[in-house]
Amino acid sequence: MGRIICAGLGPGDPDLMSRRAERAVRTAGHVAYFRKKGRKGQARQIVEGLLAESAIELAMEYPVTTEVPFNSPDYNALLSAFYDDWAARLEALAQSTDIVVLCEGDPFFYGSFMHLYTRLRDRVEIEVIPGITGMTGCWTATGTPITWGDDVLTVLMGTMDEEDMVARMAATDAIVVMKTGRNLPKVKRALARAGRLDAAWLVERGTMAGERIVRLAETEATDCPYFAIVLVHGHGRRPEAVRMEAAQ
Amino acid sequence: MGRIICAGLGPGDPDLMSRRAERAVRTAGHVAYFRKKGRKGQARQIVEGLLAESAIELAMEYPVTTEVPFNSPDYNALLSAFYDDWAARLEALAQSTDIVVLCEGDPFFYGSFMHLYTRLRDRVEIEVIPGITGMTGCWTATGTPITWGDDVLTVLMGTMDEEDMVARMAATDAIVVMKTGRNLPKVKRALARAGRLDAAWLVERGTMAGERIVRLAETEATDCPYFAIVLVHGHGRRPEAVRMEAAQ
Repeated sequence: MGRIICAGLGPGDPDLMSRRAERAVRTAGHVAYFRKKGRKGQARQIVEGLLAESAIELAMEYPVTTEVPFNSPDYNALLSAFYDDWAARLEALAQSTDIVVLCEGDPFFYGSFMHLYTRLRDRVEIEVIPGITGMTGCWTATGTPITWGDDVLTVLMGTMDEEDMVARMAATDAIVVMKTGRNLPKVKRALARAGRLDAAWLVERGTMAGERIVRLAETEATDCPYFAIVLVHGHGRRPEAVRMEAAQ
Repeated sequence: MGRIICAGLGPGDPDLMSRRAERAVRTAGHVAYFRKKGRKGQARQIVEGLLAESAIELAMEYPVTTEVPFNSPDYNALLSAFYDDWAARLEALAQSTDIVVLCEGDPFFYGSFMHLYTRLRDRVEIEVIPGITGMTGCWTATGTPITWGDDVLTVLMGTMDEEDMVARMAATDAIVVMKTGRNLPKVKRALARAGRLDAAWLVERGTMAGERIVRLAETEATDCPYFAIVLVHGHGRRPEAVRMEAAQ
């Protein structure tokens, strides 16, 4: 019996994957990864040059992108069947060999791997190797700590309802907005309404070639890469018990 | 002129530090790290066996722990002088050599390094190597994804006011509570009041020897290690635009 090893690859720079993930990737006989049809795939790109010559690659290509209306039952049925199908294929393969599934960032933090994981966890032995999240790569790229003291950090999706977004942005110290893409105008409006736009940064391709860090207020963009992240840094909420910081 | 390189070491398992952090640690001529007086220091422990024989170690020992009342002006003055002093020492040393500062987790996510960073960033060249956060190590250890779909994640400190904590716990999907320690009874009460206690986990020493994962409701503990983390997993808030998940 083989195992499924999901290797979190970190934010994009191959040098930021963990020692354990690197070992898993270099020794993999089979590697599987999600990608959009016609693309190389972000996870696959991170491991370029690290795979063995003999490694067998399984590209798990998403069945649809924009052809079917989102939120439609058809769309969800298609995606669900796609995950069912790949879960069955990986389960069959795992009867005889190990498979390394490549994941950008950290697999358990908004990762697509969870759709396979929930289907397979009771059927196959699975190891998950954590990774540096994309947001960590992005805030490091800004050169400013994201949180300190008693700061509250809220992670939001750009796909959320605008009113909800405004309320949450106004009530927290540090903000991370993921799934930006074509939601960027809404995210920008919400930050402005919450009084946080002037402190917001847009980080595109954090830690990778083509990295771009701009003040969100200064960009005219109405669109950005889906994996771009918007950040507002905390300012160090005053701790109730400063003493404990030193008690480590 | 030398540089200061702050190496984020990840959640505790040395195998989870990044390739770049490992290289920085192995080649370091000088390493500096924070620790409590009389302790080895968590960051120092992670790199055990990786440092060169000839590496010169600078243990930055916190001046106080419990002797001075927290929140007192004396306490803050003491800590501030401590950071000023080490910033000056590292700056002087960096005139002639590189110094690797060791940090658990990710340096820009509630890290003590920021107290040196804010003092030195305009005086010395500094490189920050991101790391897997402690919370990422902890949620991986629970074997369940922390967030998916449109989940909102809120990161809170156990030192916060209880009423504030309850309101935030009730309003979010996934929860991470850091700085638990002697705040554990308050954290437990707040989770119960927010209706989230039954879904909460306490993770002590995540990814390290002695790792312990228990349902918070089932522990009688009134205290836990300061670096233990309390987690509540998200359940996959329904995305407004599912389509975009596939558009990567």
